[in-house]
Amino acid sequence: MATITSTLRPEAKKVVGEVLQGALIDLVDLSLLAKQAHWNLIGHNFRSLHLQLDEIVALARTHTDVMAERAVALGVNPDGRSSTVARDTKVPQLEAGYLQDGKVVAAITDILESIVNRMRKRVSALEEPDPVTQDLLIKVTQELEKQHWMMQAQR
Amino acid sequence: MATITSTLRPEAKKVVGEVLQGALIDLVDLSLLAKQAHWNLIGHNFRSLHLQLDEIVALARTHTDVMAERAVALGVNPDGRSSTVARDTKVPQLEAGYLQDGKVVAAITDILESIVNRMRKRVSALEEPDPVTQDLLIKVTQELEKQHWMMQAQR
Amino acid sequence: MATITSTLRPEAKKVVGEVLQGALIDLVDLSLLAKQAHWNLIGHNFRSLHLQLDEIVALARTHTDVMAERAVALGVNPDGRSSTVARDTKVPQLEAGYLQDGKVVAAITDILESIVNRMRKRVSALEEPDPVTQDLLIKVTQELEKQHWMMQAQR
Amino acid sequence: MATITSTLRPEAKKVVGEVLQGALIDLVDLSLLAKQAHWNLIGHNFRSLHLQLDEIVALARTHTDVMAERAVALGVNPDGRSSTVARDTKVPQLEAGYLQDGKVVAAITDILESIVNRMRKRVSALEEPDPVTQDLLIKVTQELEKQHWMMQAQR
Amino acid sequence: MATITSTLRPEAKKVVGEVLQGALIDLVDLSLLAKQAHWNLIGHNFRSLHLQLDEIVALARTHTDVMAERAVALGVNPDGRSSTVARDTKVPQLEAGYLQDGKVVAAITDILESIVNRMRKRVSALEEPDPVTQDLLIKVTQELEKQHWMMQAQR
Amino acid sequence: MATITSTLRPEAKKVVGEVLQGALIDLVDLSLLAKQAHWNLIGHNFRSLHLQLDEIVALARTHTDVMAERAVALGVNPDGRSSTVARDTKVPQLEAGYLQDGKVVAAITDILESIVNRMRKRVSALEEPDPVTQDLLIKVTQELEKQHWMMQAQR
Amino acid sequence: MATITSTLRPEAKKVVGEVLQGALIDLVDLSLLAKQAHWNLIGHNFRSLHLQLDEIVALARTHTDVMAERAVALGVNPDGRSSTVARDTKVPQLEAGYLQDGKVVAAITDILESIVNRMRKRVSALEEPDPVTQDLLIKVTQELEKQHWMMQAQR
Amino acid sequence: MATITSTLRPEAKKVVGEVLQGALIDLVDLSLLAKQAHWNLIGHNFRSLHLQLDEIVALARTHTDVMAERAVALGVNPDGRSSTVARDTKVPQLEAGYLQDGKVVAAITDILESIVNRMRKRVSALEEPDPVTQDLLIKVTQELEKQHWMMQAQR
Amino acid sequence: MATITSTLRPEAKKVVGEVLQGALIDLVDLSLLAKQAHWNLIGHNFRSLHLQLDEIVALARTHTDVMAERAVALGVNPDGRSSTVARDTKVPQLEAGYLQDGKVVAAITDILESIVNRMRKRVSALEEPDPVTQDLLIKVTQELEKQHWMMQAQR
Amino acid sequence: MATITSTLRPEAKKVVGEVLQGALIDLVDLSLLAKQAHWNLIGHNFRSLHLQLDEIVALARTHTDVMAERAVALGVNPDGRSSTVARDTKVPQLEAGYLQDGKVVAAITDILESIVNRMRKRVSALEEPDPVTQDLLIKVTQELEKQHWMMQAQR
Amino acid sequence: MATITSTLRPEAKKVVGEVLQGALIDLVDLSLLAKQAHWNLIGHNFRSLHLQLDEIVALARTHTDVMAERAVALGVNPDGRSSTVARDTKVPQLEAGYLQDGKVVAAITDILESIVNRMRKRVSALEEPDPVTQDLLIKVTQELEKQHWMMQAQR
Amino acid sequence: MATITSTLRPEAKKVVGEVLQGALIDLVDLSLLAKQAHWNLIGHNFRSLHLQLDEIVALARTHTDVMAERAVALGVNPDGRSSTVARDTKVPQLEAGYLQDGKVVAAITDILESIVNRMRKRVSALEEPDPVTQDLLIKVTQELEKQHWMMQAQR
Repeated sequence: MATITSTLRPEAKKVVGEVLQGALIDLVDLSLLAKQAHWNLIGHNFRSLHLQLDEIVALARTHTDVMAERAVALGVNPDGRSSTVARDTKVPQLEAGYLQDGKVVAAITDILESIVNRMRKRVSALEEPDPVTQDLLIKVTQELEKQHWMMQAQR
Repeated sequence: MATITSTLRPEAKKVVGEVLQGALIDLVDLSLLAKQAHWNLIGHNFRSLHLQLDEIVALARTHTDVMAERAVALGVNPDGRSSTVARDTKVPQLEAGYLQDGKVVAAITDILESIVNRMRKRVSALEEPDPVTQDLLIKVTQELEKQHWMMQAQR
Repeated sequence: MATITSTLRPEAKKVVGEVLQGALIDLVDLSLLAKQAHWNLIGHNFRSLHLQLDEIVALARTHTDVMAERAVALGVNPDGRSSTVARDTKVPQLEAGYLQDGKVVAAITDILESIVNRMRKRVSALEEPDPVTQDLLIKVTQELEKQHWMMQAQR
Repeated sequence: MATITSTLRPEAKKVVGEVLQGALIDLVDLSLLAKQAHWNLIGHNFRSLHLQLDEIVALARTHTDVMAERAVALGVNPDGRSSTVARDTKVPQLEAGYLQDGKVVAAITDILESIVNRMRKRVSALEEPDPVTQDLLIKVTQELEKQHWMMQAQR
Repeated sequence: MATITSTLRPEAKKVVGEVLQGALIDLVDLSLLAKQAHWNLIGHNFRSLHLQLDEIVALARTHTDVMAERAVALGVNPDGRSSTVARDTKVPQLEAGYLQDGKVVAAITDILESIVNRMRKRVSALEEPDPVTQDLLIKVTQELEKQHWMMQAQR
Repeated sequence: MATITSTLRPEAKKVVGEVLQGALIDLVDLSLLAKQAHWNLIGHNFRSLHLQLDEIVALARTHTDVMAERAVALGVNPDGRSSTVARDTKVPQLEAGYLQDGKVVAAITDILESIVNRMRKRVSALEEPDPVTQDLLIKVTQELEKQHWMMQAQR
Repeated sequence: MATITSTLRPEAKKVVGEVLQGALIDLVDLSLLAKQAHWNLIGHNFRSLHLQLDEIVALARTHTDVMAERAVALGVNPDGRSSTVARDTKVPQLEAGYLQDGKVVAAITDILESIVNRMRKRVSALEEPDPVTQDLLIKVTQELEKQHWMMQAQR
Repeated sequence: MATITSTLRPEAKKVVGEVLQGALIDLVDLSLLAKQAHWNLIGHNFRSLHLQLDEIVALARTHTDVMAERAVALGVNPDGRSSTVARDTKVPQLEAGYLQDGKVVAAITDILESIVNRMRKRVSALEEPDPVTQDLLIKVTQELEKQHWMMQAQR
Repeated sequence: MATITSTLRPEAKKVVGEVLQGALIDLVDLSLLAKQAHWNLIGHNFRSLHLQLDEIVALARTHTDVMAERAVALGVNPDGRSSTVARDTKVPQLEAGYLQDGKVVAAITDILESIVNRMRKRVSALEEPDPVTQDLLIKVTQELEKQHWMMQAQR
Repeated sequence: MATITSTLRPEAKKVVGEVLQGALIDLVDLSLLAKQAHWNLIGHNFRSLHLQLDEIVALARTHTDVMAERAVALGVNPDGRSSTVARDTKVPQLEAGYLQDGKVVAAITDILESIVNRMRKRVSALEEPDPVTQDLLIKVTQELEKQHWMMQAQR
Repeated sequence: MATITSTLRPEAKKVVGEVLQGALIDLVDLSLLAKQAHWNLIGHNFRSLHLQLDEIVALARTHTDVMAERAVALGVNPDGRSSTVARDTKVPQLEAGYLQDGKVVAAITDILESIVNRMRKRVSALEEPDPVTQDLLIKVTQELEKQHWMMQAQR
Repeated sequence: MATITSTLRPEAKKVVGEVLQGALIDLVDLSLLAKQAHWNLIGHNFRSLHLQLDEIVALARTHTDVMAERAVALGVNPDGRSSTVARDTKVPQLEAGYLQDGKVVAAITDILESIVNRMRKRVSALEEPDPVTQDLLIKVTQELEKQHWMMQAQR
């Protein structure tokens, strides 16, 4: 079976592959958690938060695709299946059932902070092996930090 | 903490809640698996299948939202977190790594068939307790059966 | 003067006509009351509620037209004049003057609940005489129940 | 409970408030009557009139909102509830049942003429107390007079 | 040669297949007849009818596609070739040559009535074997009955 | 009954009328056959062909309307009823049932070639009697020849 | 002062220049007359004719621009000033004051017929000197003949 | 023959009618002259002026329609035929043939100044008899003065 | 150097020029202050206010342009440079640093009230010298008063 | 390997093939030269010319595609590779480095004139062998002559 | 009062905060100065420059928002009030009154050059402390340098 | 003659200029070769590849413009004339005549690989002299690598 040839050296490809798979897991899980909160939310700020959470879902879905397609373009197979995400995710989880608005703001702030911290490490890790991929990680970090501010601003 | 009052009788609510949670798991996992194939696909039919798989993702995401919002509108908390999906899914899974186009057609056909079978049972189960919810399940079944044909037609 | 011939048997036409006229009154009055709250609203959640109330107005107006055009398509004359609505409405009314946001949430939740209850009875009543009309009532019930959740979620 | 402070002197506010409430009643009732004719219409010119009546509905709804929001912006509570409209309307009413096209043209011409006459008096009444509101009344009068011509032209 | 596997039991598939093929013939022929009238129309109401007939063509074409794709999705081959349509159609035909507007209104009213009668029987026939297909027949019946009213209203 | 006066001399009108009626039959039947293949298609190239066939349907429908409206604008009654098409068509027909992709490519290539040959004769026939109509035939021939290439290129 | 060099021989340029200036006068006057009727129209068919007349205005304005820009592209100065149009027009004129719908249909039919007759002569006159310009005259003739039919069809 | 009843007193109607007819002539002629310059223009600033002149044409056409429809809505027949415009226009005329860019700027500046002067007098004349019409004259004056600046600024 | 000739008498020009320059300063500063709050906002109502403040920015920017272009169209040079705005503004200022949501509502309400008061005086001042400019001031006052209500309603 | 069968006789195919290949070379080179000028342009008219040159690029690209697809539709292989264009082009070339605006106007006028001359010969050459292709050459000639005027008008 | 937690180390935050505040001042003042020139411009190139200046305004406004939102997302309060801008700006200022086109080209070229020089220093300063913010500065520098070329090219 | 001043030091400008000119040649030739394949393609995958090749053309054209405008913004003259491209290109060439689909996939994969290799060297070369330009090279490399994957995936 044919495979995709990489435009990177093997060592660089290994580093970049791990970075992209890690970012993929973070972003798939962010999209699932933001939807979970979007649905089970309750409280005075329902409508504002309900809409903002869907913007986070859209952001997470867009960049998930960018990460995965970048990985395969470099000859690395992305893995975004539910069992892989459930097993490997490092994102703090939400409880089942209704979620009060104040708690959602706090929880999503933590979730975003946790992801941003890993993203910043990924940006550093890619500077030498592949500045072309690094640029994509910089973009998603910018947007996650913006959402982090906007979520935090309404505490 | 406030909760959402149901417009259904308790027994009906229980049946409808289980149906919607089951459909939710099927559809979230379908969206993750169709993306997995969209990324790792390889073969002469790459471009056609790559695009068609994204249509299935869009379909799955749209109806996931419909199922979950319907559940909470009836006072039932939907659960679409990665750990729940990984634990409860009944959808046949894809292997990791590259996926040859012919295999993808076969696998997605099986995945859709498996989901359609459960959806038809859900349609029957809802006729008496809640025709309003049943109508939403009928819609998603129509669209899944159409994708099932289109995937199968290219074997 | 020419009239519209019905595609239904006389008894079925009578039942369907009463159902559609009842739904029409509910929906016209919902559109007027949601606008009344949209204008006289006051409180911290002003902007969110102000926008959400206009979505309810749009929903009510769209389905009012569907109900009325369905009625005349079956040879029954719909009546949505102000005097008829004022006389026949069963929807709980709002007071004149400023309306505090918390009160609006409670009042609109009650209004929607009252209409949903009547709509579910109409869905049942139509199953035998006209499933084609029943399908239209199911649609409006789905949307009203969704608004009912979203209004209630912000208590 | 907070209220909206007026940017007008008390006497001016009183005059403007009455003018806007009067215009509101005229326009809500126009929208209900034009819809009533839109539905129950019958005759050779059905399609042209059916479409034109919906343009009048759209015009009436747009300006209803302008009038009501202007009132509350000046600290006056608008009242557009069905019971208020039914009690206070001065617009000539339509009969129930089918409405022949020629009769609709005549009746809507009368309805528009009746409203235009009151609107012109309102324009005069506002010149001194509030030219900013007067401008909004001028706009709606222009559009009503245009519809009056177009309805009349097809007698 | 591969074929499409059905998600229905054989007996149900047979009933549903006949219903969909019948609806297909009705709708293809409706689209051809409405175009025939659209072109050969003459009379004072030319423009209104000319435009309305094209709406009927659009409606018929959209639902033709839905019927045929539903059939093949269930493993039944739709047949919409001109010889099949000419042989099997039960729709009352139009004469060749110019068609006066009044006659067109009467003829299209008859054509729609004839199709609606068969559609209502198809809706009943599908309730038990396949509610998922039934829902599609309900939709097309709603729209045909609406056009039936609008055509009839201009007699 | 009024008729449409021609802007052509009687002999020219006769020639042009026959040419347009012939083109109309070709194009109506092309639209029905391309839909037939669009539905019953099966094979690895399903998706590409399924989409391309719908472009041919769109092309055929657009030019059918142009031909028919041109005919009546010149005082000639177009006839596109199913019985006329079935009786007069010279387009090679498709078999009933599933159609393998390779066969569809061959069959549609033949169908387009057969129509293009007649269209080129029509272009020649119109040069003298009516260059204004000839220009419309040239347009449709250009587009049919382009589809002929694109279908043939994938053999 | 610089002038535009022609891509035509002097004799051809002369013929083409006269043809284009003639067409320009016809089309400017058509746009003014169709607007005149659009405004002063009266009668049962008011709305249909009012809208159709504006389509004729749009058609006339578009092609006026094409004619004039084609003239100057060939080094011939177009002249569309009111005094020139009033002096040179050969288009039958409308009376001042209200215009009954039946009379408008007859008058616009005559106006279009008069212009089409001149346009067909222009098409012939250009065949030899400039087929590139001829093509533009053919386009406008097609559209004028279509409007001629549509106006005539409603007598 | 039916006529349009005025919503104005006879004396007011006479004044308003004359104002609107005067504005109509100014605006029709402006549209013809700006097109004349748009076509025959020559010079370094060709492209900028060519585009700007078409904006003036669009402005003139839009307001021509507003003036004429306002007139007939008040029961006064507008007259925009070429012979009337040529006879009554007070707008300074352009010469035939090529027009150098500098001259066009000067001439259009004069044309706009001439029209603005008459428009300001019309605004004053309408204050008492009809503020509803006056508002429309104010709008067109604003836009003409803006074009006057933009044309003049490039001298 | 060329300058723009005024269409106003010198005294009128002076009054109008001062009014427009005053409005310009108010609106530029409103746009800067609303952005300042848009960025530094903090509190539970963050998202609603953040979005609403950007609507005020858009409103202020649109009308700034209208004021300035009107000034220069009348031969008066608008001055919107930062030093001029800082020196001449009469708008109450915001503090540096984070701004709590409740304080922002209060402060923006004051800012809008302060501007509306000056705008109403400008409307009065322009009635005699230039009703054409007055109309533009009326428009911006309507919109500022609407925002004033909407901001105040959420106290 | 399969090839595309021609719908033309061999001699006609040879003539048409040469005409289309010649037009292709002209249009590819026009697109490259207009971009070259678009980038290296300098002078007072920078912005206007910069934009107009991009319109020429768009025109050239669109018709390049039409020529090439027409060629292959007739069984002739188009050749638009850089080495072929460089070897066969007859279009006057631009120098490297900055290009002053006046020189660009002159050079592009010459380039367009050179291409138009060849295009007019191609139009004549195709009249007998293939009027269907001739029509495509006429279209591109119309547009090139329009650009020739607009470029020349700003000398 | 809550504040936004930074995702940066304190020293890095200080550097990034100063860079962003500096860029903010540059961009707010650029937007005000480009508007000032947009309004007071005079000369032959009026229209081209008038439009290009508005593109610079749009560019400046977009990036102002990006800079300010990035600052607050990192826990630094942006300050874009008129007094701060007037006090801290380093952008060369424009004079009051009319601005001749040639002078505007020169002045805006200087303004852009001055800002680009500071922006390039900011890009260097951010490489180590925050590559995520650096990327945003790179984007704005690219666009400012492009405008610098386009302004300069028309000297 | 005026020239564009660079915002870079001379040595940096030299390096950046060579990098941009090299990228320009690569991208112009890619656009010509992808079009060549788009036209002469033959084989079962015709339609998918035909469409995908046009996406590569669009990508190449967009970035060609970015490279060339960036060069001139830095004071370096880009050269994209056919003779320069033919002389300097390092891109592997396609043969004349029909191109089988499998061969096209292989050839375009090679072409993209060849360009990506040069682009990655350019990215490295720019890190020190101009990170602002480097960012543009990173973007085009990302997109070329994505197309490289998608082309290769269908081998």
